[in-house]
Amino acid sequence: MADWKTIGEQKRQSVQDKIPKEWRLPASTLADAHAASDLDVTSIPRECGILTADEVTITESYDATDLLAKLAAGEYSATAVTTAFCKRAAIAQQLTSCLTEIFFDEALERSAFLDDYLATNKKPLGPLHGLPISIKDSFNYIGQDTTLGFVSFVGKSTATHHSALVRMLLDLGAVLYIKSNVPQTLMTADSENHVFGRTLNPHRLTLTAGGSSGGEGAIVGMRAALLGVGTDIGGSIRVPAMCCGTFGFRPSASRIPYGEQSTPGRVGSPGVLAAAGPLTTSARDLSLFMKIVLNQQPWQYDHSVYHVAWRPVAEKKTLRVGLLPLDPAFPVHPPMKRALQSAIDRLKDVDGIELVPLEYVPSIAVANRQIADYYSLDPDITPFKNIEASGEPKIRSVAESPFVSQRNGRLIMDDLYTLNANRAQAMAEWHKNVWIAKNLDVLLGPVAETTAMPHDTFGNTPYTTLYNYLDYPSVVIPHGKADKAVDVGEGFVSYKGYNAEKTHGAPTAIQLAARPLFDEELLAAAEKIAAILKV
Amino acid sequence: MADWKTIGEQKRQSVQDKIPKEWRLPASTLADAHAASDLDVTSIPRECGILTADEVTITESYDATDLLAKLAAGEYSATAVTTAFCKRAAIAQQLTSCLTEIFFDEALERSAFLDDYLATNKKPLGPLHGLPISIKDSFNYIGQDTTLGFVSFVGKSTATHHSALVRMLLDLGAVLYIKSNVPQTLMTADSENHVFGRTLNPHRLTLTAGGSSGGEGAIVGMRAALLGVGTDIGGSIRVPAMCCGTFGFRPSASRIPYGEQSTPGRVGSPGVLAAAGPLTTSARDLSLFMKIVLNQQPWQYDHSVYHVAWRPVAEKKTLRVGLLPLDPAFPVHPPMKRALQSAIDRLKDVDGIELVPLEYVPSIAVANRQIADYYSLDPDITPFKNIEASGEPKIRSVAESPFVSQRNGRLIMDDLYTLNANRAQAMAEWHKNVWIAKNLDVLLGPVAETTAMPHDTFGNTPYTTLYNYLDYPSVVIPHGKADKAVDVGEGFVSYKGYNAEKTHGAPTAIQLAARPLFDEELLAAAEKIAAILKV
Repeated sequence: MADWKTIGEQKRQSVQDKIPKEWRLPASTLADAHAASDLDVTSIPRECGILTADEVTITESYDATDLLAKLAAGEYSATAVTTAFCKRAAIAQQLTSCLTEIFFDEALERSAFLDDYLATNKKPLGPLHGLPISIKDSFNYIGQDTTLGFVSFVGKSTATHHSALVRMLLDLGAVLYIKSNVPQTLMTADSENHVFGRTLNPHRLTLTAGGSSGGEGAIVGMRAALLGVGTDIGGSIRVPAMCCGTFGFRPSASRIPYGEQSTPGRVGSPGVLAAAGPLTTSARDLSLFMKIVLNQQPWQYDHSVYHVAWRPVAEKKTLRVGLLPLDPAFPVHPPMKRALQSAIDRLKDVDGIELVPLEYVPSIAVANRQIADYYSLDPDITPFKNIEASGEPKIRSVAESPFVSQRNGRLIMDDLYTLNANRAQAMAEWHKNVWIAKNLDVLLGPVAETTAMPHDTFGNTPYTTLYNYLDYPSVVIPHGKADKAVDVGEGFVSYKGYNAEKTHGAPTAIQLAARPLFDEELLAAAEKIAAILKV
Repeated sequence: MADWKTIGEQKRQSVQDKIPKEWRLPASTLADAHAASDLDVTSIPRECGILTADEVTITESYDATDLLAKLAAGEYSATAVTTAFCKRAAIAQQLTSCLTEIFFDEALERSAFLDDYLATNKKPLGPLHGLPISIKDSFNYIGQDTTLGFVSFVGKSTATHHSALVRMLLDLGAVLYIKSNVPQTLMTADSENHVFGRTLNPHRLTLTAGGSSGGEGAIVGMRAALLGVGTDIGGSIRVPAMCCGTFGFRPSASRIPYGEQSTPGRVGSPGVLAAAGPLTTSARDLSLFMKIVLNQQPWQYDHSVYHVAWRPVAEKKTLRVGLLPLDPAFPVHPPMKRALQSAIDRLKDVDGIELVPLEYVPSIAVANRQIADYYSLDPDITPFKNIEASGEPKIRSVAESPFVSQRNGRLIMDDLYTLNANRAQAMAEWHKNVWIAKNLDVLLGPVAETTAMPHDTFGNTPYTTLYNYLDYPSVVIPHGKADKAVDVGEGFVSYKGYNAEKTHGAPTAIQLAARPLFDEELLAAAEKIAAILKV
């Protein structure tokens, strides 16, 4: 039996081999594409000559809403669009290691079928007709592996079924062509593993792309997809979205089909639910995705999805935006604080927006301690067993993870009852003393303490995890970039450290959240606020 | 400190003392009102002379829908209606021991306020204006005790807050006047405890009224309320409804506010969720209750309620009704089998109804074994501690409960993961191979193996518990009565025993169920089917 390194390398090479020769970047470009390079690679797809001018337009001039209209009108063929995004994905992969599986051939067969369909039937197959959509590795796609980055899963995880969401997306007319990279265990903000390597941040390769849907972040950040689907149990959609400068949405749990995925942990956790959701290049594309999926009766595909269709919401005359008080335990770094202040400054005099400073919210630190316990319930510590099974070592961000404690696997039923009781109490407290008392529509706050950080130093994610704990839908809106000239941070102290030089150029963002199952209201607010912020 | 018997007797007497002297039944009537009497007491309220002719009409000639229209129109005053139902509740209490708390005085003050309101404002306070609604003892009502039938809770459980649903019902204009009896632990179908005694079945006092919302069953069965609210984690609404010949509905969990109740077990259970729901005298009143509560934004009152308003549903051209195959492990007794067959016979030739016999469903017996484990998770076995705290003994149905096993309190995290995984698999299996494969709208089957049984012999509840396990909304429609002349049951064998003589006269019923959050579709089907069955 081969050793873990060889198994990982062979698998990685077999994926790399699926990139056609004519889509490969020159060695001179590749020489600078590594984790110690400060390169911003977002313009390489446009400049490298692999894409035609039309393909640059297709991938750079539209969001999914616009492109779908052009596909439905036959203005672009599905094949032209698919080819453009396959090329761009190939380039993104060479620069950022964002992919796990590549199935361009199958995608091009499908796009040809869709073009025939449109020609014959004079109408698109469905509302996602011809749109290439990227999916996180955890989704199963027949014939492709679902290794989740575990060496021990290589050769043993070829999917014989589609995940529920994959079946839906295909029924809706989408083209699937790639699966994307994740961290070993899926529980860190560094999407690195011993099979596919480390996903790099397209805006600066020395920085993390975020995790666990880090591959999706890099892909959408590179516009190698206009729509990617990730999953989020602590920030795994929102952190990569922020790191890579995209929009990202964690819906309320159980709205978007999560079923028939593979998971790194043991099935049957009584803890916090993960949610599937989109990463996009525009605010309205988040709504587009939700609306299309929820209007396709997802509960016919997945038993665990709520029977709750998309609810059109009327625009509120006055949107009451609560300003989340920052937790002194989690000091927000200068660039993120500036992004937040900038958003507040732009919103404060807008008609129809009322900013509501909050003096009190229940403890964010306590919520984070408790969710760490929820993450530690699995008595078998299954993700670690999956690591050990091949002899591969832990990646650094797993070894140093704040979620991996002495308590991992040792919590007992008594702890779980206490956790659940405390969580219910916190939810009731937020409900009564924040939402109802202040009559709020949404909460505005940071996505994280930091922007994308140098590899392996991102650490925990208190401001995203909070909303998983509360099961609040929450959305990331990109807003600006870190700037060492402005974000000097003199005298700023953080347990995570802060270095204006090292994070210069990293995208910054804000986060909005709403109460459970107020997804539609939240997205309407996000569109409104994104328009004001001009993103 | 007084012994448990004295404490119980004193509390019971203090409640009994709240019945005005002029509403007390003569000793000759009371002499026959005991657990060993075969009396049917349902006609006593009309015959005993305590109610005026008008009050008999108010309590017997309408369902809640009709009576609310008359209250809103000022045709009956809230005071007249409240007085009528207080009298009837007083009588029901003397005959069946269905109550735990009585607050007639407060109810009459409120009804006077409501009458003033209507006179002044020329409109009702809300859609439940003036309707007396009975609530299970587990709901908290300020100033009343929530003993749950535990002697150890007497004197220590006076509510200082209303439960979320109580606040809603009051905002909607309802009149609250009584709380109703439950079994010790709330986990049996015999509503008996050492504080309030045993609730008897109004149709035959030797039979159980069901449990755990047995007090509600007897109250609505006596028409001492047209609308009662119970809770259900294994059949606790549906079994009493069936036993007492009323309609009963267990909604999908988390639709009707369950918050701020008292519970017999430890808070924080990761198991099956209980649901609050109505018992009524007509099918349309179930929809009335749901529609009114869900249109009042219950998520503003209770953080744990889904943000899912009442969804109006169009009538289906063809209602596909799957016929649940009976589990040989749980043989259905002759009267219940006859009720089911009678319903099927009446439905089979109706236009717009398509009966779909099912050859296969996942095991009902396995679901029941697993839900018994969910009931056993509490590591402190809290309900038993609440018993022991006063020195009172277990009631017989608790001591012999099929849900109280060696495993109680001993299950560990590993068991819970296995349980959750198995449950998710069963849910997926039902979804795929029953609902989707057969394209069903509702399932039709028995409520229980038996009708109401002689006290302490009801045992487990496999056909209701199944739907708690699956979180299916499910509704009980009364249909006929056991008849020893027809339901002879020669050669019928059941581990529960069957005695045509002893259950003669007990109400029979059918049960309909739908997928999670298909409450609206289910209730529409229930109204249609009840109309066909002429109930």
